[in-house]
Amino acid sequence: MTEQSLKAERAGRGRRLDIARGTVEMTHGSGGRASAQLIGELFAKHLTNEWLAQGHDGAVMPPITHPVAMSCDAHVVKPLFFPGGDIGRLAVTGTVNDVAMCGAKPLWISAAFILEEGFPLADLERIVESMAEAAREAGVAIVTGDTKVVEKGHGDGCYIATTGVGERIADHMISGASARPGDAVLVSGSIGDHGMTVMSLREDMSFGTSLVSDAAPLAQMVANVIAAAPHVHVLRDPTRGGLGTTLNEIAAESRVGITLEEKSIPVKPEVRAACEFLGLDPLYSACEGRLICIVPADEAEAALAAMRSSPYGEGAARVGTVTDTAPGFVEMVTLMGGRRMVDWLTGEQLPRIC
Amino acid sequence: MTEQSLKAERAGRGRRLDIARGTVEMTHGSGGRASAQLIGELFAKHLTNEWLAQGHDGAVMPPITHPVAMSCDAHVVKPLFFPGGDIGRLAVTGTVNDVAMCGAKPLWISAAFILEEGFPLADLERIVESMAEAAREAGVAIVTGDTKVVEKGHGDGCYIATTGVGERIADHMISGASARPGDAVLVSGSIGDHGMTVMSLREDMSFGTSLVSDAAPLAQMVANVIAAAPHVHVLRDPTRGGLGTTLNEIAAESRVGITLEEKSIPVKPEVRAACEFLGLDPLYSACEGRLICIVPADEAEAALAAMRSSPYGEGAARVGTVTDTAPGFVEMVTLMGGRRMVDWLTGEQLPRIC
Repeated sequence: MTEQSLKAERAGRGRRLDIARGTVEMTHGSGGRASAQLIGELFAKHLTNEWLAQGHDGAVMPPITHPVAMSCDAHVVKPLFFPGGDIGRLAVTGTVNDVAMCGAKPLWISAAFILEEGFPLADLERIVESMAEAAREAGVAIVTGDTKVVEKGHGDGCYIATTGVGERIADHMISGASARPGDAVLVSGSIGDHGMTVMSLREDMSFGTSLVSDAAPLAQMVANVIAAAPHVHVLRDPTRGGLGTTLNEIAAESRVGITLEEKSIPVKPEVRAACEFLGLDPLYSACEGRLICIVPADEAEAALAAMRSSPYGEGAARVGTVTDTAPGFVEMVTLMGGRRMVDWLTGEQLPRIC
Repeated sequence: MTEQSLKAERAGRGRRLDIARGTVEMTHGSGGRASAQLIGELFAKHLTNEWLAQGHDGAVMPPITHPVAMSCDAHVVKPLFFPGGDIGRLAVTGTVNDVAMCGAKPLWISAAFILEEGFPLADLERIVESMAEAAREAGVAIVTGDTKVVEKGHGDGCYIATTGVGERIADHMISGASARPGDAVLVSGSIGDHGMTVMSLREDMSFGTSLVSDAAPLAQMVANVIAAAPHVHVLRDPTRGGLGTTLNEIAAESRVGITLEEKSIPVKPEVRAACEFLGLDPLYSACEGRLICIVPADEAEAALAAMRSSPYGEGAARVGTVTDTAPGFVEMVTLMGGRRMVDWLTGEQLPRIC
């Protein structure tokens, strides 16, 4: 083989991906030339940073001199695209937020794709663009990735698992086990927007609303809260299972009771309407851009002000109080003035919501 | 509700998972009580460490004072169980190895599961046990995880995405772009074992061999090589695409040529037989426990000795040389003394091999 033909051979790699009309093929997951092409012509077009550019299976970044926070999420949301976001935005914000909830500044994320044979490359590109945009907004770099392809009928278009790494900025441990009686329970905005948006789009459930997902990165809000309320005890984002389940987890881990005031919990009218239509409870409907913050009572106002000053925290409100009665349980003072238990989500309210 | 009935209600969570006969249900992915039960009764039974015990969506670990290495992999291997390993072992070793290939000591990994409704809990437990064992062997902790469930027909039992984080122990950048003319190309053992083991099990391809996957963690071997050959230029594990594709990637990134000696490349007779049967080339068959190491020629013997002293490196051999002719290309001196191009893997040789 001459040098010339070798070059021609190499150039034969030249048939470019037809992103507009092409689909994911099994070869795109084989680790050979087609995989390299998918990375080069689609992923690298939108995701660029010095670490990804190392072109290795792994990436090497600077040391982290503070405690290291790490979290991961698999994303299987259905449908893939919805008002306010898509699986790409969710895959970045979901993981960035879990890292932030450790009281940390998210730095880097990894992204592993499981694509179904036949998935339109144009949809994949929309998703990757959306990830790039969400990463920019969140101030994180997507430093390493992987793509696998499964046969038609063994996936559902696109699944994405992401892991985030960050450095703790709080100077104490912030965890679900740290709530103390007397603490204030704050939420950064209306609950259930994401869950009801996705449910409203599901097949046979279209009931035309103006719902928009709240999917958003919360790293900046968390940094503001930590600066304003340095003794913050718990930070948590009420995703799957919603506010109700998340507060139950905290009550159990901290061995405290939590009393909610129904009248203080922000719920948008359209979310309430969708829940009524479906026989669901907004307390268990997922949020993807809301922060639960449990702080000593004397830092509650400062924390609320910090939340409200963030782009996604305008609707922040104090919704309850941590108590020393009935440890492990959450109860709610209803609009009518009665009291009811808020149990963990049982059964399957919202499958594949994120 | 009395304190008594509250406790009874809480105790009502008491029906335990039937791991022997039960299956994954949609509720196990809902983020509510069933999710918590799956984590508590299955995952936590086998995976325990101080970080997972934090019980948060994320985990907080100590600072990393050296450069941070990070890598991720999605695992969709089919079948899930095979001689020498399973998807659980692969999910740990694959990612641990990618981190090690950065010249790093792997520390922590995350694991995201995408389970198909109806998947037997007993199989899931086998997989989780296998992950725990592989993590112990590799000296890493599984610090954070996530589980999602998709409807029957939208998955294939179990997919696992893992991300590993480690600290660089080499004091220089080790990368696919660092090979230099004159360097020796070393491989830690026979090639293609994993790929041919999995292929031999695929439906309609059973040809009864004694093949066993080489899936193994290589972190210790990498540490030994770095200590013995401090100027090592490239470390890479030839997974999907095999030795042939991996060397092409290195040749392209380093802008060098690579010449292989066919007679020096270790291939087990049963792997060769399986390849002949299937019309495949061992050069493109995946390894999951082999190390490609490219070192200055004067460190080659030390590196080989270090590889051979490791439990998975007995069969280490020098298989080629880096050249300054035909940059970007890999050629091979055949058994017959001729020369042939070793191109990138084109098309789909081995779908879902890892």
